[in-house]
Amino acid sequence: MTIRLYDLAGADAGLRFSPHCWKVRMALAHKGLAHETMPWRFTDTDAIAFSGQGKVPVLRDGDEVVSDSFEIACFIERRYPRAPSLFGGPQGEAVARFVNAWADATLLGPVGSMVLADIERALADADRDYFRRSREARFGDTLENVQAGREQRLPAFRASLTPLRLTLKRQPFLAGEAPNYADYCAFGAFQWARCVSAFELLADDDPVHGWRERLLDAHGGLARAALVGY
Amino acid sequence: MTIRLYDLAGADAGLRFSPHCWKVRMALAHKGLAHETMPWRFTDTDAIAFSGQGKVPVLRDGDEVVSDSFEIACFIERRYPRAPSLFGGPQGEAVARFVNAWADATLLGPVGSMVLADIERALADADRDYFRRSREARFGDTLENVQAGREQRLPAFRASLTPLRLTLKRQPFLAGEAPNYADYCAFGAFQWARCVSAFELLADDDPVHGWRERLLDAHGGLARAALVGY
Repeated sequence: MTIRLYDLAGADAGLRFSPHCWKVRMALAHKGLAHETMPWRFTDTDAIAFSGQGKVPVLRDGDEVVSDSFEIACFIERRYPRAPSLFGGPQGEAVARFVNAWADATLLGPVGSMVLADIERALADADRDYFRRSREARFGDTLENVQAGREQRLPAFRASLTPLRLTLKRQPFLAGEAPNYADYCAFGAFQWARCVSAFELLADDDPVHGWRERLLDAHGGLARAALVGY
Repeated sequence: MTIRLYDLAGADAGLRFSPHCWKVRMALAHKGLAHETMPWRFTDTDAIAFSGQGKVPVLRDGDEVVSDSFEIACFIERRYPRAPSLFGGPQGEAVARFVNAWADATLLGPVGSMVLADIERALADADRDYFRRSREARFGDTLENVQAGREQRLPAFRASLTPLRLTLKRQPFLAGEAPNYADYCAFGAFQWARCVSAFELLADDDPVHGWRERLLDAHGGLARAALVGY
């Protein structure tokens, strides 16, 4: 039975933009695992009720169901040990949790704030009201007000990338000469923004920009070929 | 010939407080490598001139001389491949560079600002003037003014530890069940503060506090047994 990934989709079912789903899609490609992706929308709660929770990514592989992107990566790493490793061993898996925590804590809030109204425009009609209510409650302002002035927030955002930048000055990927799951953890946030917004987060001459380009090209250009919804 | 580490020392030659030297001392202990440490002071530039640069740590192993803590860790990892690994493989080494860059970018400035005047009091007389001049130029204020109000900066500092905290809620060390060089990269800054100051950076119930305790106990309690200079 084919691996099935429930993947957040926009108004166009081909638009897939969730940062956490992108981590998993890159991981599945890294391991070369055949799979199908099921477009899922915020309001499709019934469709993933079998997972016992309400968020994607959800991965079903035979009788096994796993949610949470990091848990999915660990699951496929164990289940398919002969496919290329996502972590380079148990210590790498443990340290990748730190990179994931750094990426989620450092990137998701600022990136989200810079593309929030753009996301809403890309959503299916049924999802827009849910998204607006839940995100306006989270950010404490309208989507439009949260996104406004994003150009002025770019310098602080780019400064927060210092650890990534310093590392990528030394090596092409966080994992060295080739990417692994640590790279996908950080890449997810950039791909999220790219899929829903024309707003450019990175300067052309930033080593982080070069790294993002390399990841867009990785695995047959999977991320570069992704539909963008604006 | 024994491995020799040039290690920053205070007025008491037994007081060793450099965050980068601590990374290396933990790494040498991790690999179980016999070595001697040579107390070095900021103004002992001649003593490490053979390294072609002016900062410690400097490690001499036979004819090989390496400076920069991360380069030293990579060097001993390659030279002693049968000793316990510092990285768990090449991908782990690459990702540890990111952890090191995060630790240096996130911890050293804020921690330094909170113990700067304490450091100066621990120094040998010959080093005090150099330290005051160089650090006051770097921070743009007197050591005392930089350190003042540190209690008010603790909440922001502790908030900056979120990626570390989230990871350590899940596992005892960044590297999993046992520490590796990724842990030592972050630990160095905490041990730096501990050696020169009674000022407490962490709340007792912070998972980062528990992790620091475990690293103080690691390798026979090497870091816990360190002389403190206040």
